[in-house]
Amino acid sequence: MDYSHYFENSIRETKRKLRESVRDDWLIIQAVGSIGELDRAANLLVKRLREWYELYNPEFSKSLADHGKFVELILRKGKSELLKEVKVRKEDSMGADFSEENLKPVMDLARAISELYKLRAFQEKYLEQLMKKTAPNVAAIAGHLTGAKLIALAGSLKGLAEMAASKIQVLGAERAMFRHLKDKRNRPPKFGVLHEHPLISAAKKQDHGKIARGLADKTAIAARIDFFKGKFIGDKLRQELERKFR
Amino acid sequence: MDYSHYFENSIRETKRKLRESVRDDWLIIQAVGSIGELDRAANLLVKRLREWYELYNPEFSKSLADHGKFVELILRKGKSELLKEVKVRKEDSMGADFSEENLKPVMDLARAISELYKLRAFQEKYLEQLMKKTAPNVAAIAGHLTGAKLIALAGSLKGLAEMAASKIQVLGAERAMFRHLKDKRNRPPKFGVLHEHPLISAAKKQDHGKIARGLADKTAIAARIDFFKGKFIGDKLRQELERKFR
Repeated sequence: MDYSHYFENSIRETKRKLRESVRDDWLIIQAVGSIGELDRAANLLVKRLREWYELYNPEFSKSLADHGKFVELILRKGKSELLKEVKVRKEDSMGADFSEENLKPVMDLARAISELYKLRAFQEKYLEQLMKKTAPNVAAIAGHLTGAKLIALAGSLKGLAEMAASKIQVLGAERAMFRHLKDKRNRPPKFGVLHEHPLISAAKKQDHGKIARGLADKTAIAARIDFFKGKFIGDKLRQELERKFR
Repeated sequence: MDYSHYFENSIRETKRKLRESVRDDWLIIQAVGSIGELDRAANLLVKRLREWYELYNPEFSKSLADHGKFVELILRKGKSELLKEVKVRKEDSMGADFSEENLKPVMDLARAISELYKLRAFQEKYLEQLMKKTAPNVAAIAGHLTGAKLIALAGSLKGLAEMAASKIQVLGAERAMFRHLKDKRNRPPKFGVLHEHPLISAAKKQDHGKIARGLADKTAIAARIDFFKGKFIGDKLRQELERKFR
């Protein structure tokens, strides 16, 4: 007897299951990774843009630290207008006159960077929607970006739900943790990606560890609720935290 | 008597000189730096794109190693068409079905990467023109991209013109050179950025050092001619090299 069709059926069935198994937390992991890489790429390019543009108009570039605004303004306005804004007379500028031909590649680069910024903003909106749908409680506690990073570091929402709060607290600080484990004279890290949470950055330094512990506790609870598709209590958890630490 | 207008005049004069002093080799250094950073940025993003897209259509992505072609094809053609091209039936694919909403951010990322590739190509053309104008002999020997990297590593065309051939040979291999100087058991590097030269990559390994030396010798001559605005003999120099080493 020929059993091969049994195997074939079973293989087909497995493939079908694989096709249907893409979970929203995989999309979260890709989106938050993409946002991180867009940041890195734009940063790399904007540093070059500044250096290049400063041959042409150093006074304006030095006057504006914000990369995003810098890119938008040089795309919108010409050199003489920008010099007026920083109150430098044209004959006092130390920038060189660029021919049309030499200015074009600089402006092309600025346009490309501006597109990367826009894409990053779109993808953050997309990530926010995914988080609201898949991990609303985690998003309410940790924020959608930080929450997504925690899911990515845990490998999945399931991974985060199964993780002890003490481990969530230091997710993203693996290097500092290993430094501590190798040599106890190095203090253990207080937090990993949670460091970017507004409750922590607003607090005094001596409270950081305590707040990070509180945040990690609530995030662990939130991840379990989200994984088991429980109801939304994120706002309540967050209020508890804020009452305690603000 | 008030001498302040003398100072003012002198400052104004200095600024004017600065304004007029932007030299083409500075533009070369910026352009070649920008090309390098565009490469790095696009690479970072295309790796993420592959990972993301492979949740949707792994078979096509695995079948095509070339990043540029991959990006162009997924932008031009839909999943079912691409699956047909790699001869995978839709029911055999292990990729998941993505909703329109989930596919959009992936395709946005692909479009951004495609724009970076286009910009890189434009900037390489621009660099080629600059090199033809400013350092035609160096470009003829080393190629416009490698030649521009040598100028950037030397800091200027003047720097390259003043450099000994033996130093040009290892420009870009500073790390390996220091490793050698610290511990003589490490062999000195045979070449730095010249490693990407077609004459070297086409040759047998035991000839690499010899060819690199020949290339560096001719590049040193070429840089001096270019710096002193001598006439174009790059083709002759290159032919000599090719006769000797091919």
